[in-house]
Amino acid sequence: MTIWPDRRLLDLLGIELPIILAPMAGSGTAALAIAVAEAGGLGSLACALLSPDQARVEFAVIRQGTSRPINMNFFCHAIATIDAAREDAWRQRLRPYFVELGLDPEIPAPASSIPSFGGVHCDLVAELEPEIVSFHFGLPSEDLLNRVKATGAKILSSATTVKEAVWLEQKGCDAIIAQGVEAGGHRGMFLSETVATQVGAMALVPQLADAVRVPVIATGGIADGRGIAAAFALGASGVQIGTAYLFCPEANVAPLYRQALKNAQDDQTAITNVFTGRAARAMVNRIAGELGPMAENAPPFPLAGAALAPLRAKSEAAGSDDFTPLWSGQAARLGRELPARDLTALLAEEALATRNGRFTERGRQ
Amino acid sequence: MTIWPDRRLLDLLGIELPIILAPMAGSGTAALAIAVAEAGGLGSLACALLSPDQARVEFAVIRQGTSRPINMNFFCHAIATIDAAREDAWRQRLRPYFVELGLDPEIPAPASSIPSFGGVHCDLVAELEPEIVSFHFGLPSEDLLNRVKATGAKILSSATTVKEAVWLEQKGCDAIIAQGVEAGGHRGMFLSETVATQVGAMALVPQLADAVRVPVIATGGIADGRGIAAAFALGASGVQIGTAYLFCPEANVAPLYRQALKNAQDDQTAITNVFTGRAARAMVNRIAGELGPMAENAPPFPLAGAALAPLRAKSEAAGSDDFTPLWSGQAARLGRELPARDLTALLAEEALATRNGRFTERGRQ
Repeated sequence: MTIWPDRRLLDLLGIELPIILAPMAGSGTAALAIAVAEAGGLGSLACALLSPDQARVEFAVIRQGTSRPINMNFFCHAIATIDAAREDAWRQRLRPYFVELGLDPEIPAPASSIPSFGGVHCDLVAELEPEIVSFHFGLPSEDLLNRVKATGAKILSSATTVKEAVWLEQKGCDAIIAQGVEAGGHRGMFLSETVATQVGAMALVPQLADAVRVPVIATGGIADGRGIAAAFALGASGVQIGTAYLFCPEANVAPLYRQALKNAQDDQTAITNVFTGRAARAMVNRIAGELGPMAENAPPFPLAGAALAPLRAKSEAAGSDDFTPLWSGQAARLGRELPARDLTALLAEEALATRNGRFTERGRQ
Repeated sequence: MTIWPDRRLLDLLGIELPIILAPMAGSGTAALAIAVAEAGGLGSLACALLSPDQARVEFAVIRQGTSRPINMNFFCHAIATIDAAREDAWRQRLRPYFVELGLDPEIPAPASSIPSFGGVHCDLVAELEPEIVSFHFGLPSEDLLNRVKATGAKILSSATTVKEAVWLEQKGCDAIIAQGVEAGGHRGMFLSETVATQVGAMALVPQLADAVRVPVIATGGIADGRGIAAAFALGASGVQIGTAYLFCPEANVAPLYRQALKNAQDDQTAITNVFTGRAARAMVNRIAGELGPMAENAPPFPLAGAALAPLRAKSEAAGSDDFTPLWSGQAARLGRELPARDLTALLAEEALATRNGRFTERGRQ
């Protein structure tokens, strides 16, 4: 395995292939993490939407399925204070949809809170001892971070700008994920809220690699070996891949969502805040198109999504994804329906073949 | 020169290095085109803002300086009809700036028209016989295009989506420029006006390369050899580079603009319509930040810019770039102040070294 041009990430994380399964809250599964880990990549468990007990169960399943290193991923967002006026204005904007779908616009929004990384999560990390812990939306407080580090876990987090990368390195990240604007799901941005200046991977990765000393992991728009080879050329030591893994049978992707992914075109996603209140890339379906993609004054993360829940439920029951968050990066079109272990091996094989000039993709469907 | 992994573009255009100087109306010069051509790349002459006589003079200078193939570039936008109400509303939005700068808000905007490619340009191409003709904003009518083709010129145009690429190939383009969202200057988009769904090069290039049979030229965020190597890995047969050439002494870049480029960070540009009415990437200066980046109801291309002209002139005279279009891609930070011939040779050398795994950029200033 000395053929990879840069072994820094492999050595740091104790993995064989420089491919990290993107943690995908909701869509990721233990089976997906196991498959990627067993193939030699890094399996990830997205813990943001799991209670400690749920995370404990999932992690145990993963440990039973593989003895390879595993990444536990957490959100470390600032907890929003509820602004009743803003909430109400948002519900007023949604009111016509409630009426259209025959729903009572006055039904209270389901309780919605996504806890930020805290002491209980520190205890969980200390108990389960994942080899790697990754964060989204910056890093937790110094005190919490030190407790995680004390477990011996390597620390990763995402940067969407050079400034964020330098900040993460100064706080002690062991490697930094350079999240190109192409990436599906939530932007990891934490020093700025300006979506318009977010940077494409082609420009971000080399500038970021020049600015930090730790290994850089490229993510965003990478869905086959060509993207992996490109990431290495740009100065990355590895990649994180999300959307391409949604096509695997192990992913928890509902039929409507799966169908949308299978029909994906390159220009059907946008960064939108309508689903959670925070900027995230998803397919532009009805609600994202009509209210967004960036809706002014959407309630802060994750409150915007709660108000949508009844619309989504009713709509999905009728076979429509009008109100469903169809998280996707810009390269879903390159997705292939393969078991995750096979996909991981294929990605690595393609990447090495590309580097060696033998990889031609002409004529692939 | 058989070391390039894909010679299709080199053979098509009759060049030695797979590097095209991006046509940059206003900043490009004959000296820049000559230098890139003499280094083995493709020199380009941006004709959009030139009268036929001016283009004739510039082209003659280039032909005197090099016998290598040259690209003449034209805009083929639909000509906008003037909407007096919209013009007036735009001037009202600008009024506070006029007052602030001590300018009369009622002075008529300078005449502003950028002719689209037409019969007179066909005659020019037939007369000058450039080896390559490239278009931005689609292609001219079939009749006009056939006249250009009859001169023997190879035809290039830009696509920002797979759909646009397929359209261009069907119309007979010999190679297609895949313009990633990172690119500076005007988006070549012509089948859609939706900026939010524009695609990063990492995702666009492989999807586009899969969809067409002609060679693909990657552009956007490519400013050093790492980007070129990445573009090849993604399936491109060459690259087009703009912003990196603005750092060359041969570029026509005023001191204020040059200073802004030298101070560029990765996250300081956005796609904005405030400078011309059409989506284009520039640094977010005062006017782009305050009115945009995408201003609703800006007059159509190129009318929005005319109203700004007095503000820009007064402001620049006072040493401010508050109203200056600071066109830039997202990788200006990677720019190096070298003569264009040296830069072109260096770019090629770096790209080949990256492919061979020997290129490390750590510690570059």
